[in-house]
Amino acid sequence: MTTETETCHAHGYTPEKAAYLRRLRLIEGQVRGLARMVEEDQYCIDILTQVTAVTSALKAVSLGLLEDHLTHCVADAARKGGPEGKEKIDEAMQAIKRLTR
Amino acid sequence: MTTETETCHAHGYTPEKAAYLRRLRLIEGQVRGLARMVEEDQYCIDILTQVTAVTSALKAVSLGLLEDHLTHCVADAARKGGPEGKEKIDEAMQAIKRLTR
Amino acid sequence: MTTETETCHAHGYTPEKAAYLRRLRLIEGQVRGLARMVEEDQYCIDILTQVTAVTSALKAVSLGLLEDHLTHCVADAARKGGPEGKEKIDEAMQAIKRLTR
Amino acid sequence: MTTETETCHAHGYTPEKAAYLRRLRLIEGQVRGLARMVEEDQYCIDILTQVTAVTSALKAVSLGLLEDHLTHCVADAARKGGPEGKEKIDEAMQAIKRLTR
Repeated sequence: MTTETETCHAHGYTPEKAAYLRRLRLIEGQVRGLARMVEEDQYCIDILTQVTAVTSALKAVSLGLLEDHLTHCVADAARKGGPEGKEKIDEAMQAIKRLTR
Repeated sequence: MTTETETCHAHGYTPEKAAYLRRLRLIEGQVRGLARMVEEDQYCIDILTQVTAVTSALKAVSLGLLEDHLTHCVADAARKGGPEGKEKIDEAMQAIKRLTR
Repeated sequence: MTTETETCHAHGYTPEKAAYLRRLRLIEGQVRGLARMVEEDQYCIDILTQVTAVTSALKAVSLGLLEDHLTHCVADAARKGGPEGKEKIDEAMQAIKRLTR
Repeated sequence: MTTETETCHAHGYTPEKAAYLRRLRLIEGQVRGLARMVEEDQYCIDILTQVTAVTSALKAVSLGLLEDHLTHCVADAARKGGPEGKEKIDEAMQAIKRLTR
């Protein structure tokens, strides 16, 4: 999907990989919990409240990944100079636009 | 969590229960896919793109549940009149506020 | 743009018209303040913070209008029954979808 | 509000100042249009649609300012190295978090 450039071999999130995996496993469990609520015919509004909790947890993961990406990949590319710095910022801006939609 | 009132015994989403369960199972799989991407050290921006896809899928579920809720529980409560109609709208507004955050 | 139906002659927000006009005037002043900040070359991040404040103020206006609309026009249409109740909810859902984008 | 650092004297948005001022003036006019709609008792849903248009226009301004900021101030700070690079990214992340709320 993306041309993984040399600037960014060890990804920004790598040092926190275990923490991200733990958070994603919790989110997976939350989604399973949503299915259980639907299965048990729980009240619509209570399910909606839980969906919002999952969405917030996912947004926190996004913002974490974005921060790691800016701190490592984008900053490294800026330091090297050349067109790649701008490309990395354009790519990050596209991701930010998707996040704010 | 919520005082499940008599207006709303068969929940708005009940006729579509199977469809919601299917969508939630797909979302669960997407979250597992995210963990796999982190595990395999995939590129941060590609992971972010996928997180956005999961968030969109969850938002679509929320909007579906909300629509079913308005069409059934809230409209029924309005028809019955009395304070309950207003209570249901207040409760729905709280959910909408959480969704727009 | 919209076929204004008979259910909804005095709009939901009418009793609070003066309050809405006051809030919109404040927002207009905030937008003028943004232009002044750009004019005076103020720091990008400070301008961004102010843009967020204006967006929040507008969102509060939206949620207020929506709540008035659900409480009056939508609830009235539901009480009358017939296809119009469902049409009003569909129309409100379209507005909610735009709000959550 | 912010310690305006030396990295960032000519702000990222400066070359586009006239364009930003034009866009903000349009937004100011749109907000005035909203007040007129309320004044004239227009239909709630039509007003809501217009509020969404103003919010979108403001969001586009935010994303433009953020892009200019990342391309200039943040990239410059990264190039210079030292703690300031990280500070600029932290500050930008705070702005991004406010934008995604």
